[in-house]
Amino acid sequence: MKIQLIGGDRRQLYLADYIRAHGFQVSTSALGTAAPPDWEADICILPLPATRDGVFLNAPMAAEPVALQSVLDHFKGKLLFGGMLPPAPQASYRVIDYFAAEEVTIGNIVPTVEGALALAIENTPFTLLNHPALVLGAGRIGSLLASRLTALGAAVTVAARREASLAACRALGAKARLYEDLPLQRFRLIFNTVPARVLEEEQLRRLPQDALLIELASRPGGFDPQKAEALGLRVMQAPGLPGKFAPETAAEIIGEYILKEMEHCE
Amino acid sequence: MKIQLIGGDRRQLYLADYIRAHGFQVSTSALGTAAPPDWEADICILPLPATRDGVFLNAPMAAEPVALQSVLDHFKGKLLFGGMLPPAPQASYRVIDYFAAEEVTIGNIVPTVEGALALAIENTPFTLLNHPALVLGAGRIGSLLASRLTALGAAVTVAARREASLAACRALGAKARLYEDLPLQRFRLIFNTVPARVLEEEQLRRLPQDALLIELASRPGGFDPQKAEALGLRVMQAPGLPGKFAPETAAEIIGEYILKEMEHCE
Amino acid sequence: MKIQLIGGDRRQLYLADYIRAHGFQVSTSALGTAAPPDWEADICILPLPATRDGVFLNAPMAAEPVALQSVLDHFKGKLLFGGMLPPAPQASYRVIDYFAAEEVTIGNIVPTVEGALALAIENTPFTLLNHPALVLGAGRIGSLLASRLTALGAAVTVAARREASLAACRALGAKARLYEDLPLQRFRLIFNTVPARVLEEEQLRRLPQDALLIELASRPGGFDPQKAEALGLRVMQAPGLPGKFAPETAAEIIGEYILKEMEHCE
Amino acid sequence: MKIQLIGGDRRQLYLADYIRAHGFQVSTSALGTAAPPDWEADICILPLPATRDGVFLNAPMAAEPVALQSVLDHFKGKLLFGGMLPPAPQASYRVIDYFAAEEVTIGNIVPTVEGALALAIENTPFTLLNHPALVLGAGRIGSLLASRLTALGAAVTVAARREASLAACRALGAKARLYEDLPLQRFRLIFNTVPARVLEEEQLRRLPQDALLIELASRPGGFDPQKAEALGLRVMQAPGLPGKFAPETAAEIIGEYILKEMEHCE
Repeated sequence: MKIQLIGGDRRQLYLADYIRAHGFQVSTSALGTAAPPDWEADICILPLPATRDGVFLNAPMAAEPVALQSVLDHFKGKLLFGGMLPPAPQASYRVIDYFAAEEVTIGNIVPTVEGALALAIENTPFTLLNHPALVLGAGRIGSLLASRLTALGAAVTVAARREASLAACRALGAKARLYEDLPLQRFRLIFNTVPARVLEEEQLRRLPQDALLIELASRPGGFDPQKAEALGLRVMQAPGLPGKFAPETAAEIIGEYILKEMEHCE
Repeated sequence: MKIQLIGGDRRQLYLADYIRAHGFQVSTSALGTAAPPDWEADICILPLPATRDGVFLNAPMAAEPVALQSVLDHFKGKLLFGGMLPPAPQASYRVIDYFAAEEVTIGNIVPTVEGALALAIENTPFTLLNHPALVLGAGRIGSLLASRLTALGAAVTVAARREASLAACRALGAKARLYEDLPLQRFRLIFNTVPARVLEEEQLRRLPQDALLIELASRPGGFDPQKAEALGLRVMQAPGLPGKFAPETAAEIIGEYILKEMEHCE
Repeated sequence: MKIQLIGGDRRQLYLADYIRAHGFQVSTSALGTAAPPDWEADICILPLPATRDGVFLNAPMAAEPVALQSVLDHFKGKLLFGGMLPPAPQASYRVIDYFAAEEVTIGNIVPTVEGALALAIENTPFTLLNHPALVLGAGRIGSLLASRLTALGAAVTVAARREASLAACRALGAKARLYEDLPLQRFRLIFNTVPARVLEEEQLRRLPQDALLIELASRPGGFDPQKAEALGLRVMQAPGLPGKFAPETAAEIIGEYILKEMEHCE
Repeated sequence: MKIQLIGGDRRQLYLADYIRAHGFQVSTSALGTAAPPDWEADICILPLPATRDGVFLNAPMAAEPVALQSVLDHFKGKLLFGGMLPPAPQASYRVIDYFAAEEVTIGNIVPTVEGALALAIENTPFTLLNHPALVLGAGRIGSLLASRLTALGAAVTVAARREASLAACRALGAKARLYEDLPLQRFRLIFNTVPARVLEEEQLRRLPQDALLIELASRPGGFDPQKAEALGLRVMQAPGLPGKFAPETAAEIIGEYILKEMEHCE
């Protein structure tokens, strides 16, 4: 079985290693070398996201742009993996979006949370120990982040919409509040994990002048970054932390899923 | 507003204190004194469970048995709270089962988990630090228990039915396995949190001779206690830990819910 | 090499198993069977403490009392281990007090701390999570206890005599105060780890009426238990927790030390 | 009382704020503005380190170099604080090296450890969770680092010279080994906290090719960085982390000490 990776960055190099280590014949293209794709390969793996503009492959380490459609066409009828792939005519293309898999989503929680901790340590002038930190959202990322921050000694408050989510966060040792009931003026460090507005301009105004807002959720995110910056607050957009802070682990998570799916599809 | 508590144990005494501290006129009956119930009270609160046999009130501190039906009848048309109440003709009785409330269920997780830790420390001849422990079930209790055991240095494995639950447990620092894939011979300490058979006799046979099984779930539980004991294993049935290990906290959780519901019902 | 254990309780049975598992020929006496001591054995191991009254061996599982001196005399010139042994004429007796060894002292910290947690969970009506707990002393036991309580979500304050000890405790996420500066009225749960008075009667009076004091240190301890009880406070004397809560682990710690010393002495 | 800060970086600006907030009249010089020093001030505070070359003040935000001796002379007979100050003729100069104070050393442990965590998260391609990490040294920094890494789920091994230090680390949930007994080939992440060679070239050779060595100790450090890099290992020199990752907290620690000393000296 021959497997071809096209495009992507350091994470795809780790992914190639991972799959090779499991006994497959792997080649890479548009990934730091001039090697052309092997269109005869049995399976193709594209990066996460597979494309940023819907037209060209996401291939920052490639010498020249690669059209996504041409890749899709070459692998028509064969198994093709990619992250956040645009919808394809399913009849003729056998496309699997690994970013939609629950195992991958969950696997990415820890690298995301560790990355968020590093960003916070580096970009605040104070220690996490004994300092108030606010986590917006009590989902999987929010609750693990709250738990890790607590383990590092921060005074964590988690905000959520429902009493039941709050009760679960209290069990972790964090304080928990409904969004409408937050003592915002206390927090110089805020993490958002909710992909929907939870802090309006009026709330942003109540934050301390030197607050740092770290946005971990996808668009539209928990607050308007322009408005936050216009108020003098510091904003860090932090998408894709697993690929940045733990590309090897992120590759293993994707690789494990791909190998399992390959077995299923055989 | 007059509130009458009838029956129960130490937890109900704490509950009486809690409600009194919030400004209500509270009396108790069948709870360590000879005082008869005040049938004129506006609201009645029964213990958890309200009854053990369906006939008499659960009232271990009462001098004489109290018939549940007579209490229900006296408070017909008035608000009556109780835990795990048998179904009543809803038209004429205004009965609220506080044990069915999500806040109460979630609030009970921490007292349950702390009680489970104490039982394990006391009933195993080894420290939790560095010893393997198996948690059956990755729900709310299972995952918090896994997290606390990990914090105490145990080598925790969580078992669940679905890969996605496992991935979430791994983020907590525990190992995670599907039920069919457990190295059972390693575990001398097993907690069950699943109210359904997960260990059959064949699996029980694979446990070490001196294993301790702590049953935290309600019936039928994760294993057959008779079969386990017949195999020489030690079994601890551990229902109702919040009332035993943290009656004051358990009372606060119930009290907070009751006060909120009283406001709603007014 | 033949090894004879005489006296002691369950911990000595685990110790016998441990040494046997390391390839030695082990026999026990005054330890639940009627077997007489094998006076021809090469090495003798006595329990911890070896004696409680200075005359008879500490042998609660023996049918009849055993005079310590007769044991000492039989093993004159041979290696004899025991815990908290009274001083012997070193010329003719080769006596080693394993309780004086630093490895054993340090090894006992974890079983002591886990036992203290279990006692606290069982004997307070509230959860550790979110409740204030006071740890007197910032030594090895005090600081590990503070760290474990913090991991379970308690609001821990450590008290010590020196600013430097306090700074180290703060790093663990606990609050830290000098003894003279303690808000005693807040603490319903107090652990003492200091073998010297740190709370005088005047301070005991400032504790809440339902406070629980757990004494983990050896005499004279951090407070006068009679005075505390006369004030209505609850006192738990908790010496020897490793033997009670983790006899197997405690035996391993002693066994490991004894085997190492046996090698040295050969 | 007028206080003059001369030289330093962002930490000294936070220190100026801290002291000002405690009611003193504070001015700064050679710290981002063109203001000359107020030689009439009662007390002078220099940065940490006060000088890097023994001649000029450590003043990266100053427009021009400032001779250390001229500052010393202007404040002769007055109280002068600085970090790692070269020895001065004590008779005429009242110089206090705040970096030598135990409170400051201990206070710096947490910012150092948090900085080390951020460096590790950022500079390894894997998550800390489930990955082996080696901490050289079981002193204050080593043991807190081991504890924090364990809390983040890393599989931590601490190495030390003495069995007693090892036993204390095991209580934290880490593995512990003597230096001569380390499975070095397993560790791709190594932190050194010992200011003396503990890894010789022969040991460095046994590390994996892509290992990262983070040096937290002062010279000469735990290994020879040139030799490590010549072997292809990655080395991060990481001195002064508190000033880099938590200048505000670091300033508070120094400020608290200085204020206390000022009281003493009055």
